Amino acid sequence: MTLTLYSDQGSGNCYKVRLLMHQLGYDLDIIEVDVAGDGCRTPEFRAINPLGKVPTMILDEGMVLSESNAILLHFADETQYMPMDHFDKSLMFQWLFWEQYSHEPAIAVARYAMHYLGKTEKEDPRLPQLWEKGYGALDMMENHLKDKTFFVAERYSIADIALFAYTHVAYQGGFDLNNYPHVRAWIERVKSQPRWKSMDEI
Amino acid sequence: MTLTLYSDQGSGNCYKVRLLMHQLGYDLDIIEVDVAGDGCRTPEFRAINPLGKVPTMILDEGMVLSESNAILLHFADETQYMPMDHFDKSLMFQWLFWEQYSHEPAIAVARYAMHYLGKTEKEDPRLPQLWEKGYGALDMMENHLKDKTFFVAERYSIADIALFAYTHVAYQGGFDLNNYPHVRAWIERVKSQPRWKSMDEI
Repeated sequence: MTLTLYSDQGSGNCYKVRLLMHQLGYDLDIIEVDVAGDGCRTPEFRAINPLGKVPTMILDEGMVLSESNAILLHFADETQYMPMDHFDKSLMFQWLFWEQYSHEPAIAVARYAMHYLGKTEKEDPRLPQLWEKGYGALDMMENHLKDKTFFVAERYSIADIALFAYTHVAYQGGFDLNNYPHVRAWIERVKSQPRWKSMDEI
Repeated sequence: MTLTLYSDQGSGNCYKVRLLMHQLGYDLDIIEVDVAGDGCRTPEFRAINPLGKVPTMILDEGMVLSESNAILLHFADETQYMPMDHFDKSLMFQWLFWEQYSHEPAIAVARYAMHYLGKTEKEDPRLPQLWEKGYGALDMMENHLKDKTFFVAERYSIADIALFAYTHVAYQGGFDLNNYPHVRAWIERVKSQPRWKSMDEI
């Protein structure tokens, strides 16, 4: 089975998919798309994925799938990376949606401004607001993890992969995790998972 | 089985859940939370749901579930409102995440500013940017629906419920659907589904 992934090397959303696929043992044909260079907005790319986003996975029969967490769900189904219990699965969905609505739009966007575009607070006036929102999300993660090893059902799942992607590089968006000991311990637990690879390695 | 839903009457995210639950025939004990009045930020509400959001569903055994689309997934599983085929299910996930990332943060936020808070363009300088982003989302919906009756697998599913919630009231956020004939026809198709109810009726 040949799978093609349109991916941006530095994107946490793309890294999520590369990490799960590596942990599951899939070979991927990766096509690099430069998000900062508007590679998602070209007519050629829009012809492949009208939603104009990476990651975009081309499945075996020419089927196209977009949205990082939807791709995670597609491949994690019935593997060890997805909880089996119905309510645990629902909690995993909850964290996946929370990540895309309440975490990524703050932490990833601040990181994009600072790390990709090299903007300072003066050059991007949204940054203080993104930091406030992002620290609010980190507070919720810290609170949740104070008596848990992983986000759902005490085992590593795609909820952890999704939340790890931008949390472990949050410093690149100006976030200091010093006051988040449970988040930092969880980051180390994720890194110690079998077949875990860093963003640069895969 | 008694289910309790913390809900804001005018919230599209809460309406999604009320609509599906009505279509599935569940009785709900609904507790009204005033979002604009900061009802989600009280210590009492945070003790129930630390994520501080509505809708929040309290399940039978005191289990708490947050995030509108996660609640839809929990109850739609193995019903007619969820596609059966694995790839169709993945496409449904794609549209649910797209709704929360690319649609709701523009259309619902513009509606919130104008309809809930009564702000004008002068009073909320984010509005032109929200309109631009929201029309971009509507363009993608129009393009997708030009040869389809529903978002996934040619049948009404929770992907439609999720996207309908804020699209059918987009005018309250200053959006004009006049140039979106396929979106308008799809809105009518959703409204003609068995047991469909308007936001005010349930």
